[in-house]
Amino acid sequence: MATIRDVAAEAGVSRATVTRALHEPDKVSPKRLAKVQAAIQKLGYRPNMLSQTFRASSTRNLVVLAPNLANPFFAKVIAGIGAAADERGYKILVGGTHGSQKRESEFVKMVETRLADGILQLSPYLNGGDNLLPRAHVPAVSVAGVPDTPYASVRIDNIAAVKECIRHLVALGHRQIGVITGPVDNCNTILRLQGYRAGLREAGIRFNPELVKVGNFRLNSGLEAVAEFALKRNNVKPTAIFCMNDEMAIGAIKALASLRLNVPEDVSVIGFDNLDFASFSTPALTTVEQPGHEMGYRSAHLLMDIIENTAPSDTADTILPYRFIVRESTGPVLRQEDSH
Amino acid sequence: MATIRDVAAEAGVSRATVTRALHEPDKVSPKRLAKVQAAIQKLGYRPNMLSQTFRASSTRNLVVLAPNLANPFFAKVIAGIGAAADERGYKILVGGTHGSQKRESEFVKMVETRLADGILQLSPYLNGGDNLLPRAHVPAVSVAGVPDTPYASVRIDNIAAVKECIRHLVALGHRQIGVITGPVDNCNTILRLQGYRAGLREAGIRFNPELVKVGNFRLNSGLEAVAEFALKRNNVKPTAIFCMNDEMAIGAIKALASLRLNVPEDVSVIGFDNLDFASFSTPALTTVEQPGHEMGYRSAHLLMDIIENTAPSDTADTILPYRFIVRESTGPVLRQEDSH
Repeated sequence: MATIRDVAAEAGVSRATVTRALHEPDKVSPKRLAKVQAAIQKLGYRPNMLSQTFRASSTRNLVVLAPNLANPFFAKVIAGIGAAADERGYKILVGGTHGSQKRESEFVKMVETRLADGILQLSPYLNGGDNLLPRAHVPAVSVAGVPDTPYASVRIDNIAAVKECIRHLVALGHRQIGVITGPVDNCNTILRLQGYRAGLREAGIRFNPELVKVGNFRLNSGLEAVAEFALKRNNVKPTAIFCMNDEMAIGAIKALASLRLNVPEDVSVIGFDNLDFASFSTPALTTVEQPGHEMGYRSAHLLMDIIENTAPSDTADTILPYRFIVRESTGPVLRQEDSH
Repeated sequence: MATIRDVAAEAGVSRATVTRALHEPDKVSPKRLAKVQAAIQKLGYRPNMLSQTFRASSTRNLVVLAPNLANPFFAKVIAGIGAAADERGYKILVGGTHGSQKRESEFVKMVETRLADGILQLSPYLNGGDNLLPRAHVPAVSVAGVPDTPYASVRIDNIAAVKECIRHLVALGHRQIGVITGPVDNCNTILRLQGYRAGLREAGIRFNPELVKVGNFRLNSGLEAVAEFALKRNNVKPTAIFCMNDEMAIGAIKALASLRLNVPEDVSVIGFDNLDFASFSTPALTTVEQPGHEMGYRSAHLLMDIIENTAPSDTADTILPYRFIVRESTGPVLRQEDSH
């Protein structure tokens, strides 16, 4: 990190001239000002942002780290964060990280250099334990994330939620229950798969890897996963499919329709999140409501409490209730399990 | 704006002490440091961010002003902006304004105080001509906005796009064509309504205000508008409905289904934007593709060009092509126009 000494040396002027150039530029000759400016740019000097003096002052900016800005569930979370920030006069700055640690690191630096007060981490990735947060002196809250984070976390109980989905399907007579997952290294995938296996175990159904298709949480991957299930070489056809989010469920329903399979008469489908679109799909989607707006709202208030030193001492894990919503996309088994 | 003189006076120390406190705090006694810090906080002094010296340096931050963070079309635009920023090593900071000018003003200040280099304005509101931008020395580009902005704009030709929708419906035999609009003061509403009226005029159909329902671009408002059309006291029932975005079209289809009206056999429906969900709805939506990702991508590159002084001299108005996509939700008139 360049110091004022380095700038003075680079510009060939005294330290007093550098500070004068910074604070009273009209007192410095244009020639010297240009030299100082060039040195500052070359060395990337940023004085007061790093100065101890400013550490105590608040910027009232919160940085939101979002892995994907086009994801409608995150949009809901961010809207909740915005509502909480509004209430306390904070601004939010949403940074798209695309899962890049370099990019995350740049946003974390905004807090370290006092351009923002804290971070809301929406990235659910474990990244092999290499998550950037926590760093020293960076107030942070994980939203919709994992248990056992070393920083505060606001989330739902993913395992219990998925177990409830499986229990619902089992009660309807399903035993060949497929699953369309998110990316394999995503913590939500890992937890929801644990819930799926626990649900099967509870019903005495053996786990069958042929019934697991890996998706990426996008509409198209639900479509493609169903096409894989439909391939002739597959011996096992699911009578129900649990999708790890609503978008993949809507994609799955579209693919089933193009195979002339009716939902739920031929195949039941369950989503996850309860996006606004879930109740508007045809058939309306049975799903788990993850309270995105509320999660954003609560986590932002918690972060502002941490920043303002008003948070309770134990903020490790806030678990909000999910809601299992039965709509039209699930129904009883009406056919032989392997007949289509 | 507080100066270093004011800080020195407030703290009861010399100016030299203030500059030393800022840049070499270890050279200042803790007592004096505390005094300077208190004065800086009280006066809100922000030295180098406003210093002339820093004006020329780039922060490589772009501020995106978004009226609504939960809107999936904006999410697409923001993803495009992020992709362009990535290519040139910029970060984006998305600010939710909720249509508040005070909030917009705070984000504009980030550019004026050199915390960011420029602004992408996603808010399509005219606000009676009171739009904050442009301000002196704030590079800005309007995305998906209006013609005749005093700053650069990347958009589609809304009027032509809607005329094409109406032409399509007229060719299918429709003459009672309803419209569900956005908020009345929204520039997209205004332009698309002009397109609707121009389309009717072209076909020799008289404009009927009873066929216009005001929505708010959300799923539910499409649903509610259809309920209004269905009220008994309405003399005129549309055989086709042009919706000013896809969400309202999906809401309208849901409401028609609950009235046991089939789309498109009983009523044709057209959307606008071509969200990912549009092709996954049942029936798949006839719509206008507004290239959201491309618009975000192009406008961000234009803004970075302006910031880096490499933009062509005439950047007033970039009009991207839209695409009219016929899917399953529109069809020929099969019944008497006022029979349901």
